[in-house]
Amino acid sequence: MQGLFISVEGGDGSGKSTQLENIKRYLSEKGMEYVFTREPGGTEISEKIRDIILDPNNTEMADITEALLFAASRAQHVAEKIRPSLEKGITVVSDRFVDSSLAYQGYGRELGDVVRIINDPAVAGCMPDITFFLDISPDDAMDRISRRDLDRLEREDLDLHRRFYMGFKKIIEEDDKGRIVSVDARKTPDEVWQDIKRSLDEAIDKRFGK
Amino acid sequence: MQGLFISVEGGDGSGKSTQLENIKRYLSEKGMEYVFTREPGGTEISEKIRDIILDPNNTEMADITEALLFAASRAQHVAEKIRPSLEKGITVVSDRFVDSSLAYQGYGRELGDVVRIINDPAVAGCMPDITFFLDISPDDAMDRISRRDLDRLEREDLDLHRRFYMGFKKIIEEDDKGRIVSVDARKTPDEVWQDIKRSLDEAIDKRFGK
Repeated sequence: MQGLFISVEGGDGSGKSTQLENIKRYLSEKGMEYVFTREPGGTEISEKIRDIILDPNNTEMADITEALLFAASRAQHVAEKIRPSLEKGITVVSDRFVDSSLAYQGYGRELGDVVRIINDPAVAGCMPDITFFLDISPDDAMDRISRRDLDRLEREDLDLHRRFYMGFKKIIEEDDKGRIVSVDARKTPDEVWQDIKRSLDEAIDKRFGK
Repeated sequence: MQGLFISVEGGDGSGKSTQLENIKRYLSEKGMEYVFTREPGGTEISEKIRDIILDPNNTEMADITEALLFAASRAQHVAEKIRPSLEKGITVVSDRFVDSSLAYQGYGRELGDVVRIINDPAVAGCMPDITFFLDISPDDAMDRISRRDLDRLEREDLDLHRRFYMGFKKIIEEDDKGRIVSVDARKTPDEVWQDIKRSLDEAIDKRFGK
Protein backbone atom coordinates (compact mmCIF):
# COMPACT_ATOMS: atom_id res chain seq x y z
CA MET A 1 0.00 0.00 0.00
CA GLN A 2 1.19 3.50 -0.93
CA GLY A 3 2.54 5.66 1.92
CA LEU A 4 0.64 8.73 3.09
CA PHE A 5 1.94 12.08 1.79
CA ILE A 6 1.57 14.86 4.38
CA SER A 7 2.70 18.46 3.87
CA VAL A 8 2.63 21.33 6.34
CA GLU A 9 2.42 24.99 5.30
CA GLY A 10 2.47 28.25 7.23
CA GLY A 11 4.35 31.52 7.44
CA ASP A 12 6.83 32.81 10.03
CA GLY A 13 5.39 32.72 13.53
CA SER A 14 2.67 30.20 12.62
CA GLY A 15 4.15 27.49 14.87
CA LYS A 16 4.98 25.20 11.92
CA SER A 17 8.18 23.76 13.44
CA THR A 18 6.39 22.80 16.66
CA GLN A 19 3.55 21.06 14.81
CA LEU A 20 5.99 19.23 12.51
CA GLU A 21 7.68 17.84 15.64
CA ASN A 22 4.27 16.78 16.98
CA ILE A 23 3.43 14.98 13.73
CA LYS A 24 6.78 13.17 13.62
CA ARG A 25 6.49 12.08 17.27
CA TYR A 26 2.92 10.89 16.72
CA LEU A 27 3.82 8.82 13.64
CA SER A 28 6.73 7.26 15.57
CA GLU A 29 4.44 6.41 18.50
CA LYS A 30 2.04 4.71 16.10
CA GLY A 31 4.97 2.71 14.72
CA MET A 32 4.51 4.13 11.22
CA GLU A 33 7.56 4.22 8.99
CA TYR A 34 8.06 7.74 7.64
CA VAL A 35 10.63 10.08 6.11
CA PHE A 36 10.80 13.73 7.03
CA THR A 37 11.84 16.20 4.36
CA ARG A 38 11.68 19.88 3.52
CA GLU A 39 11.44 22.34 0.66
CA PRO A 40 13.32 23.88 -0.92
CA GLY A 41 15.74 20.95 -0.63
CA GLY A 42 15.20 17.35 0.34
CA THR A 43 17.84 15.73 -1.92
CA GLU A 44 21.51 16.48 -2.56
CA ILE A 45 20.78 18.10 -5.93
CA SER A 46 17.77 19.98 -4.51
CA GLU A 47 19.94 21.30 -1.66
CA LYS A 48 22.46 22.61 -4.20
CA ILE A 49 19.60 24.38 -5.97
CA ARG A 50 18.36 25.65 -2.58
CA ASP A 51 21.81 27.17 -1.96
CA ILE A 52 21.54 29.21 -5.16
CA ILE A 53 18.00 30.34 -4.27
CA LEU A 54 18.94 31.43 -0.75
CA ASP A 55 22.45 32.85 -1.45
CA PRO A 56 22.20 36.53 -0.40
CA ASN A 57 24.83 37.40 -3.06
CA ASN A 58 22.38 36.53 -5.83
CA THR A 59 20.70 39.92 -5.66
CA GLU A 60 20.20 40.03 -9.44
CA MET A 61 17.93 36.96 -9.47
CA ALA A 62 14.78 37.51 -11.54
CA ASP A 63 11.48 36.36 -10.02
CA ILE A 64 10.89 33.91 -12.86
CA THR A 65 14.39 32.43 -12.35
CA GLU A 66 13.58 31.92 -8.66
CA ALA A 67 10.27 30.25 -9.52
CA LEU A 68 11.94 27.91 -12.05
CA LEU A 69 14.66 27.00 -9.52
CA PHE A 70 12.00 26.16 -6.90
CA ALA A 71 10.27 23.99 -9.52
CA ALA A 72 13.56 22.28 -10.47
CA SER A 73 14.35 21.59 -6.82
CA ARG A 74 10.85 20.19 -6.34
CA ALA A 75 11.04 18.03 -9.49
CA GLN A 76 14.16 16.34 -8.12
CA HIS A 77 12.65 16.04 -4.65
CA VAL A 78 9.60 14.27 -6.08
CA ALA A 79 11.53 12.02 -8.49
CA GLU A 80 14.31 10.96 -6.14
CA LYS A 81 12.75 10.96 -2.67
CA ILE A 82 9.01 11.53 -2.31
CA ARG A 83 7.63 9.24 -5.03
CA PRO A 84 10.03 6.32 -4.36
CA SER A 85 9.27 6.50 -0.61
CA LEU A 86 5.50 6.54 -1.13
CA GLU A 87 5.76 3.63 -3.55
CA LYS A 88 7.56 1.60 -0.87
CA GLY A 89 4.64 2.30 1.50
CA ILE A 90 6.64 4.83 3.52
CA THR A 91 4.79 7.92 4.75
CA VAL A 92 6.31 11.26 3.79
CA VAL A 93 6.11 14.41 5.92
CA SER A 94 7.25 17.52 4.04
CA ASP A 95 7.91 20.92 5.57
CA ARG A 96 6.31 22.92 2.72
CA PHE A 97 5.48 21.69 -0.78
CA VAL A 98 4.03 23.07 -4.01
CA ASP A 99 1.40 25.25 -2.26
CA SER A 100 4.27 27.37 -0.93
CA SER A 101 5.36 28.17 -4.49
CA LEU A 102 1.83 28.85 -5.67
CA ALA A 103 1.30 31.25 -2.76
CA TYR A 104 4.76 32.77 -2.55
CA GLN A 105 5.77 33.12 -6.20
CA GLY A 106 2.28 33.14 -7.68
CA TYR A 107 0.66 35.63 -5.28
CA GLY A 108 3.55 37.07 -3.19
CA ARG A 109 5.77 37.80 -6.22
CA GLU A 110 2.64 38.27 -8.35
CA LEU A 111 3.82 35.88 -11.08
CA GLY A 112 0.30 34.43 -11.29
CA ASP A 113 -0.70 31.25 -13.10
CA VAL A 114 2.73 30.66 -14.67
CA VAL A 115 3.81 29.20 -11.31
CA ARG A 116 1.22 26.45 -11.62
CA ILE A 117 2.20 25.87 -15.25
CA ILE A 118 5.89 25.30 -14.45
CA ASN A 119 5.16 23.24 -11.33
CA ASP A 120 2.74 20.83 -12.97
CA PRO A 121 5.51 18.84 -14.72
CA ALA A 122 7.71 19.08 -11.58
CA VAL A 123 5.07 17.52 -9.33
CA ALA A 124 3.85 15.15 -12.07
CA GLY A 125 0.69 14.20 -10.20
CA CYS A 126 2.47 13.45 -6.93
CA MET A 127 0.34 15.63 -4.65
CA PRO A 128 -0.04 15.41 -0.84
CA ASP A 129 -2.94 13.36 0.51
CA ILE A 130 -3.33 15.96 3.24
CA THR A 131 -1.89 19.44 3.73
CA PHE A 132 -2.08 21.30 7.01
CA PHE A 133 -2.18 25.07 6.64
CA LEU A 134 -1.40 26.85 9.91
CA ASP A 135 -3.67 29.82 9.48
CA ILE A 136 -2.55 33.06 11.09
CA SER A 137 -2.45 36.45 9.38
CA PRO A 138 1.04 37.97 8.96
CA ASP A 139 -0.06 40.87 11.17
CA ASP A 140 -1.06 38.58 14.02
CA ALA A 141 2.08 36.46 13.51
CA MET A 142 4.28 39.56 13.53
CA ASP A 143 2.62 40.70 16.76
CA ARG A 144 3.47 37.34 18.20
CA ILE A 145 7.13 37.45 17.09
CA SER A 146 7.86 41.00 18.09
CA ARG A 147 6.02 44.19 18.85
CA ARG A 148 8.77 46.62 17.91
CA ASP A 149 8.32 49.14 15.13
CA LEU A 150 9.00 47.83 11.67
CA ASP A 151 11.56 49.47 9.40
CA ARG A 152 10.99 50.06 5.69
CA LEU A 153 12.32 46.68 4.53
CA GLU A 154 10.37 44.81 7.16
CA ARG A 155 7.25 46.63 6.04
CA GLU A 156 7.92 45.54 2.47
CA ASP A 157 8.34 42.03 3.79
CA LEU A 158 5.03 42.39 5.58
CA ASP A 159 3.33 43.38 2.30
CA LEU A 160 4.86 40.32 0.64
CA HIS A 161 3.69 38.14 3.53
CA ARG A 162 0.20 39.60 3.27
CA ARG A 163 0.02 38.71 -0.44
CA PHE A 164 1.44 35.29 0.39
CA TYR A 165 -1.25 34.80 3.05
CA MET A 166 -4.07 35.99 0.76
CA GLY A 167 -2.64 33.61 -1.87
CA PHE A 168 -3.05 30.73 0.52
CA LYS A 169 -6.64 31.72 1.20
CA LYS A 170 -7.27 31.64 -2.57
CA ILE A 171 -5.59 28.24 -2.92
CA ILE A 172 -7.77 26.86 -0.12
CA GLU A 173 -10.89 28.30 -1.80
CA GLU A 174 -9.94 26.50 -5.03
CA ASP A 175 -9.13 23.20 -3.26
CA ASP A 176 -12.21 21.26 -4.38
CA LYS A 177 -10.84 17.91 -3.18
CA GLY A 178 -10.65 18.92 0.49
CA ARG A 179 -6.92 18.19 0.55
CA ILE A 180 -5.99 21.28 2.56
CA VAL A 181 -6.95 21.39 6.24
CA SER A 182 -6.84 24.93 7.54
CA VAL A 183 -6.07 25.06 11.26
CA ASP A 184 -6.55 28.19 13.38
CA ALA A 185 -2.95 28.85 14.42
CA ARG A 186 -3.89 31.66 16.84
CA LYS A 187 -4.88 28.96 19.35
CA THR A 188 -2.37 27.50 21.84
CA PRO A 189 0.14 24.95 20.45
CA ASP A 190 -1.73 22.13 22.24
CA GLU A 191 -5.09 23.14 20.82
CA VAL A 192 -3.57 23.41 17.33
CA TRP A 193 -2.06 19.95 17.69
CA GLN A 194 -5.43 18.46 18.76
CA ASP A 195 -6.98 19.93 15.60
CA ILE A 196 -4.19 18.49 13.43
CA LYS A 197 -4.30 15.11 15.19
CA ARG A 198 -8.04 14.73 14.51
CA SER A 199 -7.62 15.19 10.74
CA LEU A 200 -4.39 13.21 10.66
CA ASP A 201 -6.10 10.23 12.35
CA GLU A 202 -8.87 10.37 9.77
CA ALA A 203 -6.36 10.38 6.91
CA ILE A 204 -4.40 7.49 8.41
CA ASP A 205 -7.57 5.45 9.01
CA LYS A 206 -8.77 6.14 5.47
CA ARG A 207 -5.48 4.99 3.98
CA PHE A 208 -4.46 2.11 6.22
CA GLY A 209 -7.75 1.12 7.93
CA LYS A 210 -8.41 1.24 11.68
CA MET B 1 17.03 51.00 -32.15
CA GLN B 2 16.92 47.50 -30.62
CA GLY B 3 20.08 45.38 -31.07
CA LEU B 4 20.05 42.29 -33.28
CA PHE B 5 19.72 38.97 -31.46
CA ILE B 6 21.70 36.19 -33.18
CA SER B 7 21.93 32.59 -31.95
CA VAL B 8 24.00 29.74 -33.35
CA GLU B 9 23.04 26.09 -32.94
CA GLY B 10 24.69 22.83 -33.95
CA GLY B 11 25.97 19.57 -32.48
CA ASP B 12 29.50 18.33 -31.82
CA GLY B 13 31.64 18.45 -34.96
CA SER B 14 29.35 20.93 -36.72
CA GLY B 15 32.01 23.67 -36.73
CA LYS B 16 29.97 25.92 -34.44
CA SER B 17 32.99 27.43 -32.63
CA THR B 18 34.69 28.39 -35.90
CA GLN B 19 31.58 30.09 -37.25
CA LEU B 20 30.97 31.93 -33.95
CA GLU B 21 34.49 33.36 -34.27
CA ASN B 22 33.73 34.40 -37.87
CA ILE B 23 30.52 36.15 -36.79
CA LYS B 24 32.26 38.00 -33.95
CA ARG B 25 35.14 39.12 -36.19
CA TYR B 26 32.71 40.28 -38.88
CA LEU B 27 30.61 42.32 -36.42
CA SER B 28 33.79 43.92 -35.09
CA GLU B 29 34.98 44.76 -38.61
CA LYS B 30 31.64 46.40 -39.29
CA GLY B 31 32.05 48.43 -36.10
CA MET B 32 28.90 46.98 -34.54
CA GLU B 33 28.72 46.92 -30.75
CA TYR B 34 27.90 43.39 -29.59
CA VAL B 35 28.07 41.08 -26.58
CA PHE B 36 28.96 37.44 -26.92
CA THR B 37 27.33 34.96 -24.58
CA ARG B 38 26.57 31.26 -24.25
CA GLU B 39 24.08 28.79 -22.85
CA PRO B 40 23.81 27.25 -20.41
CA GLY B 41 25.36 30.20 -18.56
CA GLY B 42 25.85 33.82 -19.56
CA THR B 43 25.38 35.45 -16.13
CA GLU B 44 26.87 34.74 -12.70
CA ILE B 45 23.66 33.09 -11.46
CA SER B 46 23.22 31.19 -14.73
CA GLU B 47 26.81 29.91 -14.49
CA LYS B 48 26.08 28.60 -10.97
CA ILE B 49 23.06 26.79 -12.38
CA ARG B 50 25.21 25.53 -15.27
CA ASP B 51 27.64 24.05 -12.72
CA ILE B 52 24.83 21.99 -11.17
CA ILE B 53 23.64 20.83 -14.61
CA LEU B 54 27.13 19.77 -15.75
CA ASP B 55 28.47 18.38 -12.42
CA PRO B 56 29.25 14.71 -13.19
CA ASN B 57 28.47 13.83 -9.54
CA ASN B 58 24.81 14.66 -10.06
CA THR B 59 24.06 11.25 -11.55
CA GLU B 60 20.61 11.14 -9.92
CA MET B 61 19.33 14.17 -11.80
CA ALA B 62 15.88 13.57 -13.29
CA ASP B 63 15.33 14.70 -16.90
CA ILE B 64 12.61 17.13 -15.83
CA THR B 65 14.93 18.66 -13.20
CA GLU B 66 17.57 19.19 -15.89
CA ALA B 67 15.01 20.80 -18.21
CA LEU B 68 13.80 23.16 -15.43
CA LEU B 69 17.39 24.10 -14.57
CA PHE B 70 18.12 24.93 -18.21
CA ALA B 71 14.95 27.06 -18.24
CA ALA B 72 15.96 28.81 -14.97
CA SER B 73 19.43 29.52 -16.31
CA ARG B 74 17.90 30.90 -19.52
CA ALA B 75 15.35 33.03 -17.64
CA GLN B 76 18.19 34.76 -15.79
CA HIS B 77 20.26 35.07 -18.97
CA VAL B 78 17.37 36.81 -20.75
CA ALA B 79 16.40 39.06 -17.82
CA GLU B 80 19.87 40.14 -16.79
CA LYS B 81 21.90 40.15 -20.00
CA ILE B 82 20.15 39.57 -23.32
CA ARG B 83 17.09 41.82 -22.99
CA PRO B 84 18.93 44.76 -21.35
CA SER B 85 21.66 44.60 -24.06
CA LEU B 86 19.16 44.50 -26.91
CA GLU B 87 17.25 47.41 -25.37
CA LYS B 88 20.46 49.48 -25.35
CA GLY B 89 20.84 48.77 -29.08
CA ILE B 90 23.66 46.27 -28.52
CA THR B 91 23.71 43.17 -30.74
CA VAL B 92 23.78 39.84 -28.90
CA VAL B 93 25.48 36.69 -30.23
CA SER B 94 24.56 33.58 -28.24
CA ASP B 95 26.25 30.21 -28.51
CA ARG B 96 23.02 28.17 -28.26
CA PHE B 97 19.61 29.37 -27.06
CA VAL B 98 16.15 27.94 -26.47
CA ASP B 99 16.17 25.75 -29.62
CA SER B 100 18.89 23.67 -27.95
CA SER B 101 16.53 22.87 -25.09
CA LEU B 102 13.60 22.13 -27.38
CA ALA B 103 15.77 19.74 -29.41
CA TYR B 104 17.85 18.25 -26.62
CA GLN B 105 15.35 17.90 -23.78
CA GLY B 106 12.19 17.82 -25.87
CA TYR B 107 13.35 15.34 -28.52
CA GLY B 108 16.70 13.96 -27.23
CA ARG B 109 15.41 13.23 -23.71
CA GLU B 110 11.92 12.69 -25.15
CA LEU B 111 10.24 15.08 -22.69
CA GLY B 112 8.10 16.48 -25.53
CA ASP B 113 6.02 19.64 -25.40
CA VAL B 114 6.60 20.27 -21.68
CA VAL B 115 9.98 21.77 -22.62
CA ARG B 116 8.26 24.49 -24.63
CA ILE B 117 5.76 25.05 -21.81
CA ILE B 118 8.45 25.67 -19.17
CA ASN B 119 10.64 27.75 -21.51
CA ASP B 120 7.90 30.14 -22.65
CA PRO B 121 7.95 32.12 -19.37
CA ALA B 122 11.78 31.92 -19.27
CA VAL B 123 12.20 33.47 -22.73
CA ALA B 124 9.21 35.81 -22.23
CA GLY B 125 9.03 36.73 -25.91
CA CYS B 126 12.75 37.53 -26.22
CA MET B 127 13.50 35.33 -29.25
CA PRO B 128 16.46 35.58 -31.65
CA ASP B 129 15.97 37.62 -34.83
CA ILE B 130 18.07 35.04 -36.65
CA THR B 131 19.30 31.56 -35.69
CA PHE B 132 21.96 29.73 -37.68
CA PHE B 133 21.64 25.96 -37.52
CA LEU B 134 24.82 24.20 -38.66
CA ASP B 135 23.23 21.21 -40.30
CA ILE B 136 25.26 18.00 -40.26
CA SER B 137 23.93 14.59 -39.21
CA PRO B 138 25.51 13.11 -36.07
CA ASP B 139 26.78 10.21 -38.18
CA ASP B 140 28.59 12.52 -40.60
CA ALA B 141 29.85 14.67 -37.70
CA MET B 142 31.10 11.59 -35.87
CA ASP B 143 32.90 10.49 -39.04
CA ARG B 144 34.55 13.85 -39.13
CA ILE B 145 35.63 13.78 -35.47
CA SER B 146 36.92 10.22 -35.42
CA ARG B 147 36.60 6.99 -37.32
CA ARG B 148 37.32 4.60 -34.45
CA ASP B 149 34.79 2.03 -33.28
CA LEU B 150 32.26 3.33 -30.82
CA ASP B 151 31.79 1.72 -27.42
CA ARG B 152 28.38 1.10 -25.86
CA LEU B 153 28.11 4.48 -24.17
CA GLU B 154 29.22 6.33 -27.25
CA ARG B 155 26.58 4.45 -29.23
CA GLU B 156 23.95 5.54 -26.71
CA ASP B 157 25.23 9.07 -27.10
CA LEU B 158 24.91 8.69 -30.83
CA ASP B 159 21.25 7.67 -30.46
CA LEU B 160 20.67 10.73 -28.27
CA HIS B 161 22.41 12.92 -30.85
CA ARG B 162 20.29 11.42 -33.61
CA ARG B 163 17.10 12.29 -31.71
CA PHE B 164 18.53 15.75 -31.02
CA TYR B 165 19.27 16.21 -34.73
CA MET B 166 15.84 14.98 -35.80
CA GLY B 167 14.39 17.34 -33.18
CA PHE B 168 16.12 20.24 -34.87
CA LYS B 169 14.73 19.21 -38.23
CA LYS B 170 11.23 19.26 -36.68
CA ILE B 171 11.80 22.67 -35.09
CA ILE B 172 12.94 24.06 -38.46
CA GLU B 173 9.85 22.58 -40.12
CA GLU B 174 7.65 24.36 -37.58
CA ASP B 175 9.52 27.67 -37.88
CA ASP B 176 6.89 29.56 -39.87
CA LYS B 177 8.58 32.94 -39.38
CA GLY B 178 11.76 31.98 -41.23
CA ARG B 179 13.85 32.75 -38.15
CA ILE B 180 16.09 29.69 -38.49
CA VAL B 181 18.63 29.58 -41.31
CA SER B 182 19.81 26.06 -41.91
CA VAL B 183 23.36 25.95 -43.31
CA ASP B 184 24.91 22.84 -44.86
CA ALA B 185 27.76 22.22 -42.43
CA ARG B 186 29.31 19.45 -44.53
CA LYS B 187 30.83 22.14 -46.74
CA THR B 188 34.25 23.65 -46.04
CA PRO B 189 34.42 26.21 -43.18
CA ASP B 190 34.88 29.02 -45.73
CA GLU B 191 31.85 27.95 -47.76
CA VAL B 192 29.78 27.66 -44.57
CA TRP B 193 30.87 31.16 -43.54
CA GLN B 194 29.90 32.62 -46.93
CA ASP B 195 26.42 31.11 -46.48
CA ILE B 196 26.12 32.56 -42.97
CA LYS B 197 27.49 35.96 -44.03
CA ARG B 198 24.87 36.29 -46.78
CA SER B 199 21.95 35.81 -44.35
CA LEU B 200 23.63 37.83 -41.62
CA ASP B 201 24.08 40.79 -44.00
CA GLU B 202 20.39 40.60 -44.90
CA ALA B 203 19.39 40.58 -41.22
CA ILE B 204 21.69 43.53 -40.44
CA ASP B 205 20.43 45.54 -43.41
CA LYS B 206 16.85 44.82 -42.47
CA ARG B 207 17.37 46.01 -38.89
CA PHE B 208 19.79 48.90 -39.31
CA GLY B 209 19.39 49.83 -42.98
CA LYS B 210 22.17 49.69 -45.59
